[in-house]
Parts: sequence; C-alpha cells; structure tokens
Amino acid sequence: MKPMSNKRFVLAAAVSAALASASSQAADQSTLTPVVNAGQQTLQFDWPAIRVGTAEYEDGPTGVTVIHFPKRALGAVDVRGGGPGTVNTDYLRLGYDTPELDAVVFSGGSWYGLESITAVGTALKDDGVRSGDWTNLALSVGAIIYDLGDRRLNEIYPDKRLAQAALRADRPGIFPLGSHGAGRFAKTGGLFGCNAFSGQGAAFRQTGEVKIAAFVVVNALGVVTRRDGRVAACYGDTHWSKDLRATDLLASYPDSRKPGTTVPASNEGKRNTTVSLIVTNQKLNPAELQRLATHVHSSMSRAITPFATEFDGDVLYAVSTGELDPAKSPGLPNIDLDVEGAELMWDAILASVPAQPGFPHVPREVELSGSALQEYTGEYTFSQFARLRITTEHNKLFAQATGPRTVYGIGQSAPTELQALSPTDFTVVGRYPLVLHFEAPGKLVINPGDWQQMATK
Amino acid sequence: MKPMSNKRFVLAAAVSAALASASSQAADQSTLTPVVNAGQQTLQFDWPAIRVGTAEYEDGPTGVTVIHFPKRALGAVDVRGGGPGTVNTDYLRLGYDTPELDAVVFSGGSWYGLESITAVGTALKDDGVRSGDWTNLALSVGAIIYDLGDRRLNEIYPDKRLAQAALRADRPGIFPLGSHGAGRFAKTGGLFGCNAFSGQGAAFRQTGEVKIAAFVVVNALGVVTRRDGRVAACYGDTHWSKDLRATDLLASYPDSRKPGTTVPASNEGKRNTTVSLIVTNQKLNPAELQRLATHVHSSMSRAITPFATEFDGDVLYAVSTGELDPAKSPGLPNIDLDVEGAELMWDAILASVPAQPGFPHVPREVELSGSALQEYTGEYTFSQFARLRITTEHNKLFAQATGPRTVYGIGQSAPTELQALSPTDFTVVGRYPLVLHFEAPGKLVINPGDWQQMATK
Amino acid sequence: MKPMSNKRFVLAAAVSAALASASSQAADQSTLTPVVNAGQQTLQFDWPAIRVGTAEYEDGPTGVTVIHFPKRALGAVDVRGGGPGTVNTDYLRLGYDTPELDAVVFSGGSWYGLESITAVGTALKDDGVRSGDWTNLALSVGAIIYDLGDRRLNEIYPDKRLAQAALRADRPGIFPLGSHGAGRFAKTGGLFGCNAFSGQGAAFRQTGEVKIAAFVVVNALGVVTRRDGRVAACYGDTHWSKDLRATDLLASYPDSRKPGTTVPASNEGKRNTTVSLIVTNQKLNPAELQRLATHVHSSMSRAITPFATEFDGDVLYAVSTGELDPAKSPGLPNIDLDVEGAELMWDAILASVPAQPGFPHVPREVELSGSALQEYTGEYTFSQFARLRITTEHNKLFAQATGPRTVYGIGQSAPTELQALSPTDFTVVGRYPLVLHFEAPGKLVINPGDWQQMATK
Amino acid sequence: MKPMSNKRFVLAAAVSAALASASSQAADQSTLTPVVNAGQQTLQFDWPAIRVGTAEYEDGPTGVTVIHFPKRALGAVDVRGGGPGTVNTDYLRLGYDTPELDAVVFSGGSWYGLESITAVGTALKDDGVRSGDWTNLALSVGAIIYDLGDRRLNEIYPDKRLAQAALRADRPGIFPLGSHGAGRFAKTGGLFGCNAFSGQGAAFRQTGEVKIAAFVVVNALGVVTRRDGRVAACYGDTHWSKDLRATDLLASYPDSRKPGTTVPASNEGKRNTTVSLIVTNQKLNPAELQRLATHVHSSMSRAITPFATEFDGDVLYAVSTGELDPAKSPGLPNIDLDVEGAELMWDAILASVPAQPGFPHVPREVELSGSALQEYTGEYTFSQFARLRITTEHNKLFAQATGPRTVYGIGQSAPTELQALSPTDFTVVGRYPLVLHFEAPGKLVINPGDWQQMATK
Repeated sequence: MKPMSNKRFVLAAAVSAALASASSQAADQSTLTPVVNAGQQTLQFDWPAIRVGTAEYEDGPTGVTVIHFPKRALGAVDVRGGGPGTVNTDYLRLGYDTPELDAVVFSGGSWYGLESITAVGTALKDDGVRSGDWTNLALSVGAIIYDLGDRRLNEIYPDKRLAQAALRADRPGIFPLGSHGAGRFAKTGGLFGCNAFSGQGAAFRQTGEVKIAAFVVVNALGVVTRRDGRVAACYGDTHWSKDLRATDLLASYPDSRKPGTTVPASNEGKRNTTVSLIVTNQKLNPAELQRLATHVHSSMSRAITPFATEFDGDVLYAVSTGELDPAKSPGLPNIDLDVEGAELMWDAILASVPAQPGFPHVPREVELSGSALQEYTGEYTFSQFARLRITTEHNKLFAQATGPRTVYGIGQSAPTELQALSPTDFTVVGRYPLVLHFEAPGKLVINPGDWQQMATK
Repeated sequence: MKPMSNKRFVLAAAVSAALASASSQAADQSTLTPVVNAGQQTLQFDWPAIRVGTAEYEDGPTGVTVIHFPKRALGAVDVRGGGPGTVNTDYLRLGYDTPELDAVVFSGGSWYGLESITAVGTALKDDGVRSGDWTNLALSVGAIIYDLGDRRLNEIYPDKRLAQAALRADRPGIFPLGSHGAGRFAKTGGLFGCNAFSGQGAAFRQTGEVKIAAFVVVNALGVVTRRDGRVAACYGDTHWSKDLRATDLLASYPDSRKPGTTVPASNEGKRNTTVSLIVTNQKLNPAELQRLATHVHSSMSRAITPFATEFDGDVLYAVSTGELDPAKSPGLPNIDLDVEGAELMWDAILASVPAQPGFPHVPREVELSGSALQEYTGEYTFSQFARLRITTEHNKLFAQATGPRTVYGIGQSAPTELQALSPTDFTVVGRYPLVLHFEAPGKLVINPGDWQQMATK
Repeated sequence: MKPMSNKRFVLAAAVSAALASASSQAADQSTLTPVVNAGQQTLQFDWPAIRVGTAEYEDGPTGVTVIHFPKRALGAVDVRGGGPGTVNTDYLRLGYDTPELDAVVFSGGSWYGLESITAVGTALKDDGVRSGDWTNLALSVGAIIYDLGDRRLNEIYPDKRLAQAALRADRPGIFPLGSHGAGRFAKTGGLFGCNAFSGQGAAFRQTGEVKIAAFVVVNALGVVTRRDGRVAACYGDTHWSKDLRATDLLASYPDSRKPGTTVPASNEGKRNTTVSLIVTNQKLNPAELQRLATHVHSSMSRAITPFATEFDGDVLYAVSTGELDPAKSPGLPNIDLDVEGAELMWDAILASVPAQPGFPHVPREVELSGSALQEYTGEYTFSQFARLRITTEHNKLFAQATGPRTVYGIGQSAPTELQALSPTDFTVVGRYPLVLHFEAPGKLVINPGDWQQMATK
Repeated sequence: MKPMSNKRFVLAAAVSAALASASSQAADQSTLTPVVNAGQQTLQFDWPAIRVGTAEYEDGPTGVTVIHFPKRALGAVDVRGGGPGTVNTDYLRLGYDTPELDAVVFSGGSWYGLESITAVGTALKDDGVRSGDWTNLALSVGAIIYDLGDRRLNEIYPDKRLAQAALRADRPGIFPLGSHGAGRFAKTGGLFGCNAFSGQGAAFRQTGEVKIAAFVVVNALGVVTRRDGRVAACYGDTHWSKDLRATDLLASYPDSRKPGTTVPASNEGKRNTTVSLIVTNQKLNPAELQRLATHVHSSMSRAITPFATEFDGDVLYAVSTGELDPAKSPGLPNIDLDVEGAELMWDAILASVPAQPGFPHVPREVELSGSALQEYTGEYTFSQFARLRITTEHNKLFAQATGPRTVYGIGQSAPTELQALSPTDFTVVGRYPLVLHFEAPGKLVINPGDWQQMATK
C-alpha cells in the first residue's frame, strides 16, 4: 500500500466542489484543477519533433495525453477493437502524402473524452499556432479508453479545459509512465478478473539516424504478457500460480474467466481499450505507413492476451515525421522498421505497468474506540452514482452501498462488515486490496494512493 | 439586398468584445452569444423521434445543427469527399444492430467545428441524459463544413458552448431552412466562381406509415442543380446566360471555372463540403442502412454539380429510428426507400438555397459631404485576419486591405475607389454584390444582412 | 427489327452442340466458339498503352472485355453496388504507388464470369508475358455483370477459354460499342420495366498531352439518361410519354416501377450491374487516383437513374498509365481531370446504347398453310432452363413454356396464341417486341438479330 | 530424409510432358494429373456441414484446398497482409446476413492460383449444384499463397482443372495436414533464413453443441512459434541454439535476418502469405462474425512471428454455418467463441508443420565409377526457368545452373562441386539439406521426397 501523504490530498477542496455539482442534475467540471505532466517514472528520449503533455483531474482520477508534432507529420490509423472512439480517422484514410498531422490525443472518459481530442485542435487555433487557412488547419486525431463503469466511483471525464492544459504543457523528450495521462485509471486483465492497475507506456530506440518511438495506453480486457510468457500484473484467484502465464489462463479458458471462490467478486474493468502510437522519423509513403500500423497493431496480440476483443476499442496510429529521407540518408528497410516497431511496442506495453497496490496487513487485533467508530458513521457520497452508508454495531463497523452502484464489491443488499487495520483504516478481505481510510472531518478515502476515491458526508 | 434593420445589429456589443480578443494572441469566444433556433423559413414535420436544435454565433456568422434522437437510433455513414472531418465513424462501421446513436451534429468551422460534435455527447452526459454506464454512453457523430477562408473576415467557429446551446434548444418537428445552423455561412458553386450563398435544407415525406426525412448542409464546390437542369443560384460571369444550366458549365469546362473578365475576382469559397443525413422510421438492418447511405449519397451528384470533389469533404449519415418494424406493419421495399430517399435529398438540397442578395442600385449621383467622408476614414478591424483602411481624396472614398487577407476583392496593393450608393453606403461594382455601410460611431458593416461582416475602428 | 441474315446464323452447329450438353447434368462449354473483336460501331483512339480485346459466345450471347495495359499501370477501385463480383481489389486498396496492373477485365455471367478475370492473369503467364517472379506477377482485376436470369434462355458464361481468346485478340485504339464484349447481353431500366437493350461504351478525350478514356459496361437497374434529361432507351408502358424523362419516372415513383396494363409483363432484367474504368496517362499518386475513382463513380448517378442500387453491383476502376509526368510536362489540375473524367464517363455511357429492336409490323392478314403450321409444332429446347411447346389449332399457332422458366413472357400455365407476321414469323403483342422465327428444319429463333435465342426440337 | 520409393515417382510421364511444354513459349498444364485428397496425417472431425477436398499437381508440387459448405454459410473476411490475392471479398464486406457462401478456396500459385478459386464457383454451376438464378448463384471466395520464386524450379500453378478435381473429391470430416492441398509447397521463416517446410493445418473443438474449426495454410515470412516460445521448425544458422526461441530471433534482430556464414545462402521463401479460415456452427450476425475474424486474425501474431508483414498477404475468412441458433440452444458467449477460436487457430498452425527433411549423412568415402559419373553429365531441365549442367572432372561431379535462376543455391557463375552420398546421390553441404539423386535414364531428382524437383536431360 502506498503512503497516504501524497500530493493528491491537497485537492480536497476541488473534490468537494465537484461532488457538490455532481449531486445536482448537471455535472460541472469547471471547478476541477488540471494537474499537468505529473509522474516521476518517465521515458526520456531525444527527439524535438515530438512534444508530450499530460493533464489529469485527480478527482476522477482520469486524464489525457497529447502527443504533439510541432512541425506536423504524416499519419495513418488502424482500428481493430470492438468499441472504438475516434476523431478524424476518415481523413487519414484518404492516404494523402502531405504531412498535416498536428497531434495524436489519447484520453480517458470513453466517448466523452473525445472532447479532449477536438479540443487540442481548437486550442492550436485559439493559440494562433494554426488558423482557418486551408493549408494551416489544425489536424488532431486520437482515441479514447473506457475508464468509467465501476472501477471509479464518479464519471469525471477529460474535457476541453483539461486537454488544453495538456497541450499547453507539452515538452519534448519526456513521457510519464504508469498511472498518468490517459492511462490515469487504466486497468488490465478484466477478462480473467485480474483487474490489475495499468497505465501508459513508452519506448524509444535509435538505430543509426533512424528513430522509432512507441506510446501506448494499456487498458486491455486481456493481461499484459512478458516476453517469457508470464503475466505482468494480475490479482489472481486464490488457487492460481504466483508465476501466472498467459498460456495457463487460456488453457483453462473459459474457467479462468469465471468468478472464483474469492469474494467479493467484481465486474469492474470488463470494458476496455488499448490505444497506441508508433512514430518514426524515417520518411514513409502512406502505404508504407499503413503497413507499419497494421503490422505493429497485429503484433500487440503477443503482449496483450487476448487482444482486440469485442470489449476493447483498440486503435493504433502510425506517424512519420519525415525528418529522415532514405533517399538522402541511410534508413532502415521497411521490414526492419515494422519488426523493430513491433518489438518496441511490446517494450512500451511492459513499461505501462505500474507498481500494484499490495494487500494491507490485517493485524490480529486493533484497539478501537466506540466513540471514534460512531464518528465514522453516516452516509458518504462519492458522486451521484456511488454512496456508502457506514454503521456501527457491537464495536464493529459496517458498510453498505446506498447509491445506484456497488462500491468495490460492497453491495446494496446488506451491510458488509469491515475489518480494522488501524483505528482509522479498515478493509474487506477479498481478491482485491481494499482500504477504507477515515479522515476527519467526515471524509472517507478508499484506497489512498494513486487510485484513491474520496467521499464526504 | 436585405433591409439592414434586423436583429443582427443588436449583437454589436458582443462583436466588440470578440474583436478585442481576436486581436490578441489567443482567440476567446467566451463573450459570443449563441442565438438558437433562428430562422423563419422552416420545414415542419410530424416525427417526435427527431429533435432539431440550431445555434449560431452571429459574429461569425457560423453555426451548428444538432439532430437529436431522444430514443436513440441505428446509424451508418458514407464518406466520399476529399477532405472530411468526422467523429466516431469507426464505431458506426462495425455494423452493430443495436440502436445507440443519440445525435448527428453538423457544424461550421472546418475541423475546429468538430468540437461541437463531441460537445453534444458530453452535454448529454452533463445533463444526466446519458452516463458512463456502458449501455448508456452518449453516441454523437457528425461532420463539419469549411466556412472559413476569405468568405468570412474572421475565424469564429462553433464551439462546445454553442453546441450545448443547440442541443438544449432542440425541439421536434421544425428544421430552419437556408442560412441557419451549420449552414449559416455556406456557399456553393465556387468551382465556377458562382459563390452563391447557401444554407441548410430539409425535406420530409410520409408514405403510409413510413417516414423519411432528409437533412443537408450544402456547402459544395459545385452548383445546386434543379431537376430541370438549371442552376439554382450563381453569381455568373457577365456573359453567362441568365438561364444557366449545369450542363452548360460542364460543356465549357474548364473555361467556366477560370476567372472571367469581371473584377474584382475572388477565390472565396474554393473549399467546401456537403454534409447530409437521411432518416427513416422503418427498421433496417446495418447492411440495408448502409445501402441507403451509399445510394442516396451517390444520387446527390444529380443535385450538386460536380459533387464529391477533392475540395469537398462530403459525408452522409443514414439513420433508422426503427419505430416501424416491417415484420409487423407494412413498410416499403428497400429499393423504394432508397430511391425515394434520393429524391427527398434532392428536395432538401433545393430547400437549402436562400434568397441571394441582389446588386445594389448605383444612383447616377449621390450628394456627399466631405466632412462625413472624413469621418469615415480610418482603419477598421474585422479580426486579426482582416482590416480595411478607408481614405478620402477629391470627395471620393477609397478602401485598402491592410490585414493579411483581402476583403471581398479589395486588395492590399493599392486603394480601391468606392462608389457611393447613399451618403452612408458604398460599393465596388463587380461580379458579386458588395455594400460597405458606415454606421456611426466608427463602425463599418459589409453586406448588411444575413451574411454581414462588422468592423470597428 | 434487324435483318436476320447476319453472321450469327452461321453458328448453328455450335449451338446444337451446346444445347446437347446443356441438357445433360453438367454444362460443357468446350464446343462453343469464341468470336473476337466483333462489332462495327467502335470508338477509335490513339493510345498504344491501352489494348482492348473482346470475345463472345454467340450462343449465350455473352462476352468478356479485356482492357490490357502492356506496360502496366497503377490502379484503384471504388465499389459501390449492392451485389459486386470482384477479383484482387484488396491488393489495389493497399495503395502502393508501383504500377503493377496488367489488365482490367469486364465480364458477363455474374459471379461465374469471375473465371474470365482470373483467366487473363493466367493467360499472361501461360503466354510468357508474366511469370512467377515476384516483380513480374500478372495482376488482372475486374468485375462482372449479371446477364443471366430470364433475359437469356440459357446460362452460358464467359469462361477461361473465352477470356484467353479476348486477351490474345487485343489491339490498341479500338473499342467496340454497343452489344459487344461484356455488354453482349446487357440491359437497362429494369426498375421501370424498360428492359432496354444495352451494351458497352467508351469515350476518349485529349487535352494537350493529357489523355483520358472512359470504358463502361452499362447493365443498370436504372435508365440511361441524356444530358437534356431524356431517357436514352426504354420500352415504356403504353401511356408513357414518348419523350420520357428520368425525372418523370422518379416523380411518379413507385408507380412507375410497377407493372403497367401492358401484357405480357416480365421481370427480366431486375438484376444488374454497371462496371466501368477511367484511365488517364497523367501520373497520379494513389490518393489522387482514388479521388478520380470516387468522383467519377459518384458522377454516374447523373447518367444512370437510379444508380448504385441494391440490385446493382457497380464497380469502377481508375487507372493511371503514368506516361505523362506533370513534374515534367504540363498536365491538368486534378480537379479538371476529375470533372472531365466524369463528363467523359457520361459520354461513354451514352455510347453504350445500341439501336433498340423495333416492334414488328403486324399485317392485317397472313396467308398461312395448315401443313406448315403443323410442321412448326413440337417442343423446342433452348437449354435445360427453357423450352417452348408449339401447338396448332384452328389454323392458329400457340406457344407454352414447358421448362422451369417462362420464355419472354410466354408462361407455363396455358398456351399463348401467336400472331402471324409472315408464314415463318410470329409475335405476341405486348410491351416488348417479340418475334418467333421458324427456320427449317425444326429450328426456332426468338428475336432474330443481336440478341437472338435459338432452339431445336 | 524421406525414402525415395513413394508414389510421386509414378508421375514421371506427366512430368516429361509438362517439361516439354514448359520449354515452349506457352505453358500447358493440360497433361498434369490431379492427385486428390492425398496425405496420411489428417484431422478428423464430425461436422457434415463442412466438406474438404484437396488436389495437387505433383509436378509443382503445388495444390489447392476447397472447404465446401454444401448448405451454404455466412462469411466475413479480414485482410491484413501486404500482398493479398482475393476473390469476391467486396461482396462479403457488404455485411448481408443471408448465408450465401458455398466455398472458401485456398490455393498455391500466387495470383495465378486465383483461377482455382473462381473455378470452384463455375464447377458448382457446371455440375448443376448452383445456377444463374439470383438466389442460387455460387459464391466461392478464397485467397492464395506465394509458393513460386526459387523454392520451386517450375511455375506450375493450381488451375481450373485442379480446383474442379478438388471440389469433386470433397468429403466431410477429413482434413489432410502438412504438405498437402494449398500448403503443398509452403515454407516458413524466410525472414530469418529458416526456410522450413510448411503446410496446411487444422484443429477442431466442440463445447456442448458449439463446434469450432480452424483451417490454415501457413506460408509465413515469420516462424511458427509454439506456446512455450520455441520455434517449431527452422533450418538455423550454424551458431544458433537448437532450442531456438522466437524472442531470441527478435532480440537479435536485424542480425538474425541477415545471411549467416553458412553457404550456400539462399533467398528462397522471402515471399509468403498465410491464409486461414475459422468456422463455427453458432449463428452469428455479420458484426459478430467480423469480430471473430478480426480477433482471431490478430491473435495469429502469437503463433507466427512476425506476422502480417509487407511480404505476407494474410487473409482470414470467418464463417458461420448457423446450424446452432443461440436463441434456441445454449451457445457460447461471443467472447468465448473469439478467444477459443484464437486458441484453436494456434493449434491449427502447429498442426501444419510437417516433419522436416533431415540432412543426409555424408560418408567418409564413396566408391564412384568414372563411367557412371560420365553418364550423369549433361544438361538437366527442370523447367524453362531452371537448368543444371552436370560435369565431371577428376572423378568428381560438378553442377552449374544454366537457366535464368539458381538451383537451391547452386549458382550460374561457376561449377559447384558435389559431394557423394552414394553412387547415385550427391549433396552440397550447407544450411539446408540438399540431395541430387541420379535416376536412369537421364533423370535427376533433387530432394527426393515430398518436395522433390525432377529434371530430364
């Protein structure tokens, strides 16, 4: 479990405001504060033609990642998932050979996050970078992931304001890894109930003068698979091997996707999408670029198992900045570009996996004060979709969901007993780690840390 | 020429604010006022499953049209133009047979107008109509037209705020015709220099219980062609027949597309796009709906000549509300639905053509006061892209563009003499009607009326 | 009515052989004789990079048209119909910029005619023109039309042998117009019951050094429409205007598609397809070539009304021979190429319309000999699908279909009285011209002339 | 090395005839004898709705595989390779929900093999199974693999006659594995110089009433990869691990694709294609079927490394026989169908790998007779593309290619010394096994066995 004393707690004021609005008819995100370029784990790479900016609303948490090509680039797209959300792909499909692409934008928020993709285009115009001249129109494309449902207890989405913040914070050569940007609340392995925390990844390779970079937001129904076949992250069923392999999960399929004996079960994370981008500085024509897209996207079935299901909306963009003209400088054969791009994407996928929250230690006995417990009782509101009623009986604490949704396995039908970890922290033992932290006054934080959810009475 | 005393003048305050911001680095549209559901020419039709809302920024002018299906519908898309701008078409292409479509949004502003398409989706969520539940996600699709370039002297675009205003103003059974909604500053016939004013059109037909509606924003490089072959609207070259036929223009092509002897010439309107929507209440499966889309889109080559050029970004959506199940009630054979849909679309295209501004009468002599002329002099700013310097000499008025763009044929290289129409109104005689109206204090209005452009000193 | 003494009668021997085989279980086309490059109406054009060969089986009649690019060319495709039959389009869609296309093949025979498309590829290899070397593979693409159903009384299809004959007969600069090649038994206007005879057309234009050619096989459900709006060919209902216009047919739709009072009605020709090819010598990149395809294909809705219905399988190929490099010689702007290509295609469509068989003059009285009539009686077999039993009573002749299909409106339920035109020729008066010509010994020819059908007792 | 005394030797007569024709201008395959349903390794499965027929020309060797659905089925297609060859995919893409598919045909011969796909359609008509009636047209689709180039010393391709033989030999429940049908001369791993022999594979699984079958012809540029990561078949470079893993090859890429020190090198097998088919009896709608296609095709990147490169023309068909209607009988969730289909395809791919010819034992000394050697000398012709001149000097035998192509690494520039294995058999030691077997009179067989090549003086 991560320490609770992190920056995310200072956002409490914004949270309250958001909650207030969320409980009214119309959601209002105008009080939320964009946090830009957060994250200490980063990929650093030397390539000024690529600028990256991320912005997050911690109250989701959710976020957006803008990959900006200040000198424009040529783009292609490969859509393969069963539930994609995209902007302007029809234009890319026309196969023009003029570099017109300004930005590829990845976003959380499912289809609502599409707003952040279009917002990058309008921000480029609002900021005077692009205009209405036919040859100077901003072209921003992108795709979204589904980070809603019951994995979060609210429906905050990356909006115009957040995307503009990300664009305006862009910088060359740094890409935050893990739970950041569009990958802020990504998950993987839902098909098998793994529900691992995920994020965004990146990898970079330079061979001679040829540069290739891979960027990916991994939010897959399948599991991330290492090159040796082991699953990178999974909250497994109790009887599963610690050394879990993707081929094991598939060999025992469909049993492996069915809820095990571990309780509480959860169907969080059943809806997904992995969005990705492969970039090279080698000049490619549209057909070559499309081949790069098709090949690399197909190859991702190795690193994500299974890939491109009906519950994923997988989209890959391929981009050539065209800085290196093979007619002038030695480039790579296309086959090498494709194969190495695919390997790099695997690296990027592996780099997306954040440290998984551990299970809290449940002490044999915790000294609890009845009056303190009494103070914890009441109804806590996460958003209009999720509420928890805390009650106490016989010096024990109980929780019951009272809103339309369950709260991380805590249901609506009857109170669930909470086990004490400390005078302020409680848990429900199950397949997934769960911590309920009571913070005075009248504030409840679930899973304090990167993916925490906050509620107030 | 339309009378000047119309509602559009009351927006002067907003204009000033917008101009102020426009001249700074970042454009700020937050002071603009959405005007919703404007327009007296409308199509009225009885079909509660379709709600229509429009909103316009008069300072562009530009606008957005939202066609909202409150009970959702099944959608398909056919993209055929050389420069489309679309949202979420990849999802439609997967061919699911579940009605999930909430809205089709058409917008001005070229790719910047895509923001208004995504904004309809987020507005549906913000307003609590849709949510983040997988089965309740808002699906808004759409397409944009290019109404920028030198046809307008500013680059105001339909943004999130405007789209939300349009959605929230939606109502069943009324569709404003002509220069409204996304067709607010549409034009046609630029290929031949016609530069006719255009707009949005609609048509509705009910046969038995089967309803079909066609909606279109006509902003084509080609000319609108009537069923008898005559061109619906065109500012023709001087030697052209008044009874201009599309086949004449094509028979003399490419001469017909080259600038004639008439001055000043202009290349406004060379960039275009026609976006359209055909809706039926008959339940269709995805393949049938796609056939409707393909057939009707192809058929539009009759009503728009030429159609689907490289300078158009033509997109058609086909939608079935599914209210009428042919398995239960008598429906139409698909071939009839397709053929009648195509005819209806032709009707809608014809209905989009607004009354064209006439040429002002140039009187033999106008009594002008030197001091009044002196008062008119100065530099008028339309936006950061367009400025006019008015000077006077020998009791005559001259205009010269001083910004980066020409102003309706008035160039930057030398002053152009203005001919007086009245003490306050002036013109430059040429292929296109042009009126410069001086309005105290220090305010200049070009082409007062539906497509007016305003500037202040 | 065309004179009967034409070359087609000499093929009687082959007919008999074919009929013999047709009545057995397995059809055997090995006795049929390919007739190559038939047709006196031709388009002649100066362009050695395009070679054209046609071959026909008169016993169908049906045929194939091979457009061969001996120095290869770049190809693109636009598929728009509801029932296409194609070969190798997936390869074209990859958008490579290398000229690899050897031939575009159009064929009758519906999907069975696809064999003739692949046969051109193998013939190029068999003849040593192409080989198995990766860079020397023959690339033949194409599309088929539906010329089966009840328009012909047999199911002979263009096969490998016929296609090879066409390829081996190819020659530069000559394209047979009308009822030849793949258009050998094409029809148009079936939607409205017009059932006009159709064919293949072509047009050529040179502007400066830029050459454009359009080739088309018109077999549309809709009617061919002239530039003045008149229908080019239609056997109309009795009360229809002689000066029939496409807009009239559509204004009275769907009544215009329903069988009129004229008898016998017929549903022949309800299944269709128009396949076409636009070629330029101007070098285009794949995106430009695709735009040409899309634009020209859309434009065909003007010349064929309606176009691209569910009962058509319309496919257009666009090809650039690349002989004229605009970087070196003055070429045309793409927009001109597209617009002029569309006009040229309209010309080609009009050029496809053959002279329509007229109605035979029915004399007041014809001297008939009872013994001659007796001699005509018996059962005539066209193929396993169509047979006519001729009987006589009271010095009158009667016909009744005895096979699985009706014979041009002559049904199976009861004998139809034939009206005498001459001692050897008879008719049934109705919406369509019909002549039954008895030719000794025991031979019956229906509609002697270009579209004749032969039977033997 | 396989024993030489197998059935393939009896075909010598046909070979001679074919060789005779091959050396003339036009290739004539009419003397070749189809061998149907060859192969002892088979998959047997209980599913009468699927009939399989294969036919091979041993003189290629090359072949065709017909998967016939006698009661028709619903089909979808996913094209992902860089050089596909397909028939009628455009029709499948229209997404109709009527089962119309008669057969999926896989063929060798690159684009020339397309003839065999269309021939299955015409054979169904010729045989009276299908006709020209609109609702009874034969729909055969398919795809080809590239088995030409220098892997074979001739360019015999599967033609109409071979395909008809395969169709007419079809039978339910048996699928030959390995070097048969369209996989007759397939290879894998050319990217890394593996040049392993490959073939066709199949797998079948029944879960409750749900049946799934996977069929595949593996002719990939990449290597076949087992579930434990090991490469299934590869003639590796001398210093490579015997326990070769795909990840090793990629980790050392691009070195691993460069010719090693082993001589003679060869670029045979650089052109490829994997074609596949996944079938289920569960009724699926077109969108569901397309998802199955997309998912399974993507998943094949695990079993073939790399997959879908520019040098592959990968095509997958997905078919539903619709026998099991989930509305009536319990079916599988789509996600299970997709995931299990992907696993099954991996099984099928593994089942395609035939036993690899071993390296011949080179004895220390072989007693050779000078006069025998003398008898071997002369020029041997495999086809017009490949000839070997055998000479003798100092009681040693030498070979030199005299045709346009090298012969399995034996070049044209100088004689290559042959090492004796026995008085009749010789080899050149290198990365790949090679045996030259002299068979009286004047007959040379290279690599006697499944992939033998025959020549006569």
